[in-house]
Amino acid sequence: MREVFHQSLEEVQSRLVEISELVTVAIDKATKAFGTSDVALAEEVIAGDSVIDEKSVELDELAIEILAMQQPVARDLRIVVAALRTSASLERMGDLAEHIAQLARMRYPERAIPKGFKSTFEQMGKQDVEIARQLTELLRTQDVAIADAIRNADDEVDELHASVFEKVLGAQTAADAAAVVDATLASRYHERFADHAVGVAKKMVYLATGDWIGPGESEH
Amino acid sequence: MREVFHQSLEEVQSRLVEISELVTVAIDKATKAFGTSDVALAEEVIAGDSVIDEKSVELDELAIEILAMQQPVARDLRIVVAALRTSASLERMGDLAEHIAQLARMRYPERAIPKGFKSTFEQMGKQDVEIARQLTELLRTQDVAIADAIRNADDEVDELHASVFEKVLGAQTAADAAAVVDATLASRYHERFADHAVGVAKKMVYLATGDWIGPGESEH
Repeated sequence: MREVFHQSLEEVQSRLVEISELVTVAIDKATKAFGTSDVALAEEVIAGDSVIDEKSVELDELAIEILAMQQPVARDLRIVVAALRTSASLERMGDLAEHIAQLARMRYPERAIPKGFKSTFEQMGKQDVEIARQLTELLRTQDVAIADAIRNADDEVDELHASVFEKVLGAQTAADAAAVVDATLASRYHERFADHAVGVAKKMVYLATGDWIGPGESEH
Repeated sequence: MREVFHQSLEEVQSRLVEISELVTVAIDKATKAFGTSDVALAEEVIAGDSVIDEKSVELDELAIEILAMQQPVARDLRIVVAALRTSASLERMGDLAEHIAQLARMRYPERAIPKGFKSTFEQMGKQDVEIARQLTELLRTQDVAIADAIRNADDEVDELHASVFEKVLGAQTAADAAAVVDATLASRYHERFADHAVGVAKKMVYLATGDWIGPGESEH
């Protein structure tokens, strides 16, 4: 029974890694689509999100099957519950990448990226891609030291998010409303993306050490 | 054992109802705080969110305990897993009410509600409060007919959300950047709030009928 459970967990883990890899590709492409107004690339992200959704539902079904058939308790049970939550977070991160791609598509053929914000969104996207890569690595290796790197990168995303609003509100010239809407939403999506990754990382640390950093979100 | 499980489920249900009631109060107060720039009311919502967070964590612990001690299978297992997810959605709805309150506090003593958007946000808030009330009722009665009412109200919120952007982008006068940011974020928070309620309602219908409306989100 113990051996069966161990194999099941390995299956869960490899599927989480797979979904996290798809999410990494999605946020990478979405950032590029948004930065370069590449509508074909945006379409790829949008079409690809249904694959992430399906794989997430399949993983949930597997986790529920494991609960039913193997009835884990104590730490084993918490690992399976954490997998359910991680699946939900990854699914949501995929949605957020899709939303960024939708912004790029919506404004096409105009540029989605508002004037003066190019480098900020490039940095934000770069951090989110790095966070997604690190999250994949954390899920693969269970090396909780990676959680710190994710939190640090999230702090940078939060700073960039705050800087977007400072820039929008401090602009000398009258703002183009569409640009302000796009900057606000894109920045929010990037910030939420990073926040979900931190949430998953916290759960991994909790499972590994029993040290719960705390409920709720780190968002400001 | 069956009787014990039944009692446990009643406890889970009554706690979900309690959290949903707190979320209803939160979105009601947040809407009023945002509409009238009532910073004291905003502070109440912000302080109250930690209670929602705590109760949500406690409910999760109870659900995990039920899984460990009573090892439910089949539909019983799915009910407990659905409770875990509902708890996460309610916690998030509380966060969104808090974010709306934070917008009111951030702009104080100026008005948070952008000029020309008063009635739109009043309607949006009213719909969200109604949705939260209906969700509480759905959790209390398990009457799946209420799920339709929630979906209809969510459609209205989506329309109001779209109208905010139309109004912002179609404005004749140069937009005040702060007003555009606030309108964008507040509208997004209201829309997400309703969306989470629809997600919970879908799970309830699924549990009651086995008829899964589909994964992912209804958001556009």
